[in-house]
Amino acid sequence: MKRYEALADDLARSIQSGVFRPGDRLPSVRQTTTARRLSPSTVFQAYYLLEARGLIESRARSGYYVTARPRFLPPEPESASRPDGDSREVDVSDLVFDVLQSAMQRDRVPFGSAFPSPLLFPMARLGRATAAAAQDLDPWSTVDDLTPGLSELRRQISLRYLIDGIDVPADEIVITNGALEALNLSIAAVTRPGDAVLVESPCFYAVLQSLERNGLRAIEVPTHPRDGVDLDALAQAIARHSPRACWLMPTFHNPLGATMPDEAKRDLVALLDRHEIALIEDDVYAELHYGAKRALPAKAHDRAGGVMHCSSFSKCLAPGYRIGWVAAGRFRETIARNKLTTTLNTNVPAQWAISRYLQGGGYDRHLRRLRATLVGQQAQYIAAVAACFPEGTRVTRASGGYFAWIELPEGRDALALHRRAVREGISIAPGPIFSASRGFGRCLRLNYGHPFDARAEKALRTLGELATV
Amino acid sequence: MKRYEALADDLARSIQSGVFRPGDRLPSVRQTTTARRLSPSTVFQAYYLLEARGLIESRARSGYYVTARPRFLPPEPESASRPDGDSREVDVSDLVFDVLQSAMQRDRVPFGSAFPSPLLFPMARLGRATAAAAQDLDPWSTVDDLTPGLSELRRQISLRYLIDGIDVPADEIVITNGALEALNLSIAAVTRPGDAVLVESPCFYAVLQSLERNGLRAIEVPTHPRDGVDLDALAQAIARHSPRACWLMPTFHNPLGATMPDEAKRDLVALLDRHEIALIEDDVYAELHYGAKRALPAKAHDRAGGVMHCSSFSKCLAPGYRIGWVAAGRFRETIARNKLTTTLNTNVPAQWAISRYLQGGGYDRHLRRLRATLVGQQAQYIAAVAACFPEGTRVTRASGGYFAWIELPEGRDALALHRRAVREGISIAPGPIFSASRGFGRCLRLNYGHPFDARAEKALRTLGELATV
Repeated sequence: MKRYEALADDLARSIQSGVFRPGDRLPSVRQTTTARRLSPSTVFQAYYLLEARGLIESRARSGYYVTARPRFLPPEPESASRPDGDSREVDVSDLVFDVLQSAMQRDRVPFGSAFPSPLLFPMARLGRATAAAAQDLDPWSTVDDLTPGLSELRRQISLRYLIDGIDVPADEIVITNGALEALNLSIAAVTRPGDAVLVESPCFYAVLQSLERNGLRAIEVPTHPRDGVDLDALAQAIARHSPRACWLMPTFHNPLGATMPDEAKRDLVALLDRHEIALIEDDVYAELHYGAKRALPAKAHDRAGGVMHCSSFSKCLAPGYRIGWVAAGRFRETIARNKLTTTLNTNVPAQWAISRYLQGGGYDRHLRRLRATLVGQQAQYIAAVAACFPEGTRVTRASGGYFAWIELPEGRDALALHRRAVREGISIAPGPIFSASRGFGRCLRLNYGHPFDARAEKALRTLGELATV
Repeated sequence: MKRYEALADDLARSIQSGVFRPGDRLPSVRQTTTARRLSPSTVFQAYYLLEARGLIESRARSGYYVTARPRFLPPEPESASRPDGDSREVDVSDLVFDVLQSAMQRDRVPFGSAFPSPLLFPMARLGRATAAAAQDLDPWSTVDDLTPGLSELRRQISLRYLIDGIDVPADEIVITNGALEALNLSIAAVTRPGDAVLVESPCFYAVLQSLERNGLRAIEVPTHPRDGVDLDALAQAIARHSPRACWLMPTFHNPLGATMPDEAKRDLVALLDRHEIALIEDDVYAELHYGAKRALPAKAHDRAGGVMHCSSFSKCLAPGYRIGWVAAGRFRETIARNKLTTTLNTNVPAQWAISRYLQGGGYDRHLRRLRATLVGQQAQYIAAVAACFPEGTRVTRASGGYFAWIELPEGRDALALHRRAVREGISIAPGPIFSASRGFGRCLRLNYGHPFDARAEKALRTLGELATV
C-alpha cells in the first residue's frame, strides 16, 4: 500500500468511528504534513482520494471537511423483527431462484447481487500464486492431501484465528468448496429430516434453501437490525420447539448488516451449550470489518466444541476459487466423513494457490484497502438513498460487509418494486426471499460492493422514484 | 509421443486384442524396420519398452516373444453374484472408512487405493495450462460463470461426446466438483428418504455411502464379473420393489472391471424408461479403454432424458482438480439448482485450466500413452497374481480402467487378509466394503494403476502367501 493510501485509510477509519464527525474540518495539509512526517503531496493525494470516495469535501479557501449530510441521512430501522414464533416447513426456493436469476444477468445493475465487484480483489497476484502453485505441484499431493484438506492451508487459517485471539487448532478445520459447502455439511452433521432449526428473521436465503432441501423446519427468531438475534426470544423458542440446531450470522449479518455485541455472542454460546444445541456460525464477512479490529465470532466463546464456524476466502480474497472451511468443533469427524462421501476433496491446486498467496504476505494490505473502499461506498450509497428514496425510508449502517437493509415506508411492496426495477435493468433483493414466512414485504437488501459510479447513481435515483410512486 | 512409444503402444494393443498371442514371436527388428520405415534404434527402443512393461520377453539369439504364461494365468470368475433380492437399509460407512483409512497412508503399498499413480498424468502441461488460465482470468468470470459452469468447458465436453458418436448438447451438462458430486446430485434429484435404489452386486462403496447418508434402501442386483448387471434379475427387482432409481457403472465397473455389452446397455435404458426409473450412470473410467474405441455408455441410447451420465477428468487427466460433470437429461434444472444451493459453483480457474489444456490438443496423445501403460500393468499384475496366489484363485480381466477383482478359493476371508496385509504395509480393498449385505467375503479389489516395480512385486508375493496360509 502506498503512503497516501495508508493515510487515507487511517482518516477514513477515523471518520467511520466518529473521531471526525460530519461537518468537522480536517487538519490542514500543513498540519498533517508536520504531524505525520509526510510530504505535502502525499497528504494532498490522500485528501483527493477521500474526496473521490465521498467522505470529505473541499470548501474554497477553507480546507477539507467531513461530508456533512446528517439531516439527509435516513434513520436506521429501530425495532426487531416479530416473526410469529411457529416452526414451519420451508418452501421458498422457487421465489429465490426467480429473483436471483434476474440479478444474474451481467447487464443488470447488481444491487440485488450477493457478490461484490470482482475488481476489488487482487486477481493478478492471486493468478501468479496459482501459476506458481500449479507448476510446482507435487503429483502426490493430489492423493495425499485429501479431506480434511491441505495441512499448510489449515495451519495458516489457524494462525489467522490465533492472531485475532481465537484458539482454533488446524486439526479442527476441514477445507470445503466455499463456505456454502461448509454450512451445508454442518447442518447435515447435526440434523435429520423433520428437525427444527433456529434461524434469524430475516436470514440469508441460502439458509432457507438448505432447510428446504434437507426437509428441516425453520423457527424464525426476532432479530434486531443492528444488534442481531434476540436472546430472550431465542430462549423462548428453544423451550417451545426443542430445536436441534441454531444457524446464525452474528457478524455483519446478511441481509441486515447487524452484528451481535460480544457479550451477546458469549451468552448465546452459553445458552445453546446448556441445551446441547449446535451452533452453525456463518462468518463469511469477518474480514470486511470497518473498525480497526475484527469482531470476535461466537466461536471465540466455544468451550464445548458445539460451534461450527464457517467461512471462506470468496468474499475477501479469491472469488471463484471456492475455498472455504469449517472449524468444526466436536463435529469435525462427522463433517470430514460427509465431505469425503459427497465431494471427496477440494481443488488441490487452488488450496496451494491460496496458501502460497497467504505466505506472500500481501493479504493484510489488500484487506485494509478493500475495507476502506467499502467504507467509502457505504457512505456514497446511503447518501444517495437519502437523497432519492421516499421520506420515511430507513437504512441500516453495517459496521462491515457490503449490505444495507432498506425499510421502505408503510404500504410499499418490495416484490412489486423488484419486478419494476428489473424492467429498468436494475436488480434488487426483496425482503420476502429472506424469510420462511415471506415477511419483510416492504424491505430490500442493497449491495454496495460495486463502485458508486454514474450508472449506480442513476439506478439508485430510478429505484427511489419507483419506490415513491 | 516419441516414435518408439507410438510403436510400442501399437504393438501393445495388438497383444491386448489378441493379434499377437502369448508365446508368439514378434517380427524381427529388421522386419519391423523395413515394414514401418523406422530406424532400427526406434524399433529396439520400442521392444525394450514392451519388455519393461512385461508384455514381451527376449530369448537369446531368437528374438522377442509375447510373454507366455497362459497356463499360469488364473481363470476369470464365471458366475454372476447372487444377492438375496431384498431391499435393505445401508450401514457400511464405518467399515468402509476403517478400510480406506488404512489405504490412505502414503507408505502403504496402494493395492486398496481407488486412485491410480498420480505420476501417470501430464501434471507439468496441466500446470502450465493452469498458470496461463489463472493469469488471464477475467475477474467477471468468477461472477458470470456460475453453475451450470463455464460454457467453453461444457462445449468441449459436448464435443468429445460427439466425436464418440453420442449426442449430448452442452446445455445438458452441469460442471461439478468431481464425478462424486455429480453422482450425489443425481441421486438426490430423483429420490426421497426411504426410496429404494437398484445397484450392482458388488458395487462401488461410494454408492453405498451415498444411499446410507440419504436414507435410501439398496436393492442389490445379480451382476456378472465380465458382462455386468443381469437384466432379467433387474426386471424382477423392479417388479418386486418399485425402485425410484437405478445407479450403475456399466463400463469398466468398479470393483469388477465388468462392461455390459452394447445391446445390454440399450435394453437397460429401454427397460428403465418403460418403468420411468431414472438411471444414474457412473462412467468415470470411460477414457481408459484398452481397445481401439470407447465403449458407448448407456447414455448413448437415452431418448427420454432419463439417464444422468456422470464423469470427470480425475481418473484420466487431472487428479486433484475436482472437475467432473453430469449430462443430466431431463433432470438438468433440478440438478443445477441443487448444486447452486449446496456448493454454489466449481473452481473457476480450474475449469479454465482444463478447458485450455483441451484446446492445446495433447489430450488424446496423453490418453493413448496412459491406456498403453495400464494395459501393460494389467498383464504384469495378473501374471504376478497367477504366480503367487493360491490355486483356485480367479481374477477378472477388465478391458479398461485399472481394477482387477480377485476371488480367492473357498474358505478364505478377505477382511482377515486385509488386516494381516495392513500389518505388512499393504492395503487391499476387501469384498465386503462393496456390498450392502457385506457379501464377497473371499473377494478383493486390486488396483493395478501403479507401476509394477520391485515393491509391488514383493507385496503381491506377500499377499499371495498371506492368502495361502
